[in-house]
Amino acid sequence: MHLAELPTPSLLVDPDRVARNCAAMLARARRLGVTLRPHLKTAKSVDVARLATHGQPGGITVSTLAEIDWFGERGFTDITYAVGIAAHKIEALAQLQRRHGLALTLVADHAATVTDVAQRAAQLDARFALLIEIDCGGGRGGVAPDGVDLLALAQAAQASTHLRLAGVLTHAGQSYAAPGHDAIAAVAEAERAAAVHAAARLRAAGLAAPVVSVGSTPTAMHARSLEGVTEMRPGVYTLFDLDQVALGVCTLDDIAACVLASVIGHNPRSRRVLIDAGGLALSKDLSANGFAGGVAGFGDVGYGLVCAIDGTGPLPGLRVAEVHQEHGFIASANAGDADTRALFARLPIGSRVRILPNHVCMTAAPYDHYEVVRAGNTETSARWPKAGGWNPTPGGRHG
Amino acid sequence: MHLAELPTPSLLVDPDRVARNCAAMLARARRLGVTLRPHLKTAKSVDVARLATHGQPGGITVSTLAEIDWFGERGFTDITYAVGIAAHKIEALAQLQRRHGLALTLVADHAATVTDVAQRAAQLDARFALLIEIDCGGGRGGVAPDGVDLLALAQAAQASTHLRLAGVLTHAGQSYAAPGHDAIAAVAEAERAAAVHAAARLRAAGLAAPVVSVGSTPTAMHARSLEGVTEMRPGVYTLFDLDQVALGVCTLDDIAACVLASVIGHNPRSRRVLIDAGGLALSKDLSANGFAGGVAGFGDVGYGLVCAIDGTGPLPGLRVAEVHQEHGFIASANAGDADTRALFARLPIGSRVRILPNHVCMTAAPYDHYEVVRAGNTETSARWPKAGGWNPTPGGRHG
Repeated sequence: MHLAELPTPSLLVDPDRVARNCAAMLARARRLGVTLRPHLKTAKSVDVARLATHGQPGGITVSTLAEIDWFGERGFTDITYAVGIAAHKIEALAQLQRRHGLALTLVADHAATVTDVAQRAAQLDARFALLIEIDCGGGRGGVAPDGVDLLALAQAAQASTHLRLAGVLTHAGQSYAAPGHDAIAAVAEAERAAAVHAAARLRAAGLAAPVVSVGSTPTAMHARSLEGVTEMRPGVYTLFDLDQVALGVCTLDDIAACVLASVIGHNPRSRRVLIDAGGLALSKDLSANGFAGGVAGFGDVGYGLVCAIDGTGPLPGLRVAEVHQEHGFIASANAGDADTRALFARLPIGSRVRILPNHVCMTAAPYDHYEVVRAGNTETSARWPKAGGWNPTPGGRHG
Repeated sequence: MHLAELPTPSLLVDPDRVARNCAAMLARARRLGVTLRPHLKTAKSVDVARLATHGQPGGITVSTLAEIDWFGERGFTDITYAVGIAAHKIEALAQLQRRHGLALTLVADHAATVTDVAQRAAQLDARFALLIEIDCGGGRGGVAPDGVDLLALAQAAQASTHLRLAGVLTHAGQSYAAPGHDAIAAVAEAERAAAVHAAARLRAAGLAAPVVSVGSTPTAMHARSLEGVTEMRPGVYTLFDLDQVALGVCTLDDIAACVLASVIGHNPRSRRVLIDAGGLALSKDLSANGFAGGVAGFGDVGYGLVCAIDGTGPLPGLRVAEVHQEHGFIASANAGDADTRALFARLPIGSRVRILPNHVCMTAAPYDHYEVVRAGNTETSARWPKAGGWNPTPGGRHG
């Protein structure tokens, strides 16, 4: 279908850019001597997962039970669920595991949780691998790599007949606040060192730690060494976004997903072009503006930058400046009468634009499929279905 | 099911509060002498729609084609699609209209669009009512009430055999920036005056304007007169949220929807409680903090306020301070060691919390159903399904 006839808003993906991004990260993982276990919370797509795992059903990372169900049903059987486990989720996980024949790895950072999880797993006769989450400085989940909790947790896991202690996992979320490549490389080194140190402590105590897992797209792209690490779990790199451009992790040309919207109005009083993609279709994430000074050459990118229907752009000086639920407002950086006339002439009512996402994990999430469009093209060639929601519901969309 | 066993995150609704909010707005519309055409973009639920239209399938407002399909399929046949129409949507709208036997009202603010829409409608032999959108000061869609565009648009509609000019529609989005009840009342009066003036100009030119439609929850709640107006279209009032509390439009006790989340971790270094509801489950909307000084007594409400599993609260001094994709971080307003110990003791790992939404239209959107829980209760009594997405797709979830 031609993009001028597609319903709007729609989520577009360029399969060649995804393939290129995925091949580059696979090559990078090989050079660094680690396995790539891509985080599919970003793309939520089996087509992307196949490219990211090099065409073979391979180990992946996810962040919801709905994603476990979705990918499990489609042949991805080695899954790490990288959000701190809660014991009440074990029954649903055991069901998913049986239904799809999964090898599931869970993550925990609290000894009492491990004991509760082990008990529920034993009641259900379900078996899981377990990674101990390490806080490498991001302040989200995880125990300190050098604290007493680490060994207590490992011993709680070791005491279970239904959990297999598999090692450690960390995520350097603070890489998103690092100003520049050297700063990101320093965070990557802190991430590596924390995970390797924690694994060494486990081994010194006679405990198993075959897996040393790190990961964020910025650190995966800028780590100088991953010595001692066994796998990395970046996810955003499959699609990339303005966040990653602001961080210097990719270029605008690497962004593989965007939202197609229609121009539905011109308001000469507010000097705005109205589009039918608002806070739900683009998300309200503004993070790219807070990272390392924003997107070079564009200043404030608002809720996204604006490209032509064929992907040309971003159009200079334009951004989605404001969003309501289903309305977006494109504004020019300059607000003179001539600028407004030029803006309206450039984006006539009824025309189409592509909006590059600020943070693609948030933007892509609510759509149930991608429309596949190759670079420079205005015809879709396929649809890629997507996972969504949080909790598997029998026979339907995920709630 | 007990809330302690429900999957998390889940979206909860209190049916008694919805019923009370809906009855109050119906009574208000009667007192003001106007019809209530509730905006279902907020709740996206037929159960809410039935309460909002007083148990009878009545006229409703929506903002996506997916909502038209959803409500049409469930017996709501008089629907205003209150986002400026784009001509390419006419074919899909004509299909929905035939499939469900709908009376559809469209909105436009550009004469050339009206001509294009009329042409496509004639080609398909589909008939629509048309309201001319008026900009009453919000700077979103709409023509100026006193400008030349109004009559040009009306004449373009009048010239069509397949469009029926039905009047005018406006939305005072600027009510969300009004500091206090008197300021909101002034916005409501500007909204009323703009719509009534535009309708009077149409009538003076011999054109039809039976419908004079206004609406936003703040102006609906604080308008002192709606003389000359025929209908109002508020939507958020069905569920209410912290935005509306900040604006003084409702109290915390009126909020009828919230997100149930599980405590999945404690991080003593960042002094945060981790929950399994993040930026997707709560949305990244922060608007309540920008409105009229925020929520009285709570200061910064972040991404939401925290209640106990039975709805008690909000718990003093706590808020969702930060969100990642699937992680939320609850922080205490005070960051001493004793405060952190009290926070962790109050919210043990494995316990449940309810998060009151900052902006419920954004928070509720991605869920596919509500879990129904009466006030003070911890057992669900029903599920209310929800619409979602944007574009009707044959036989499936909306893409």
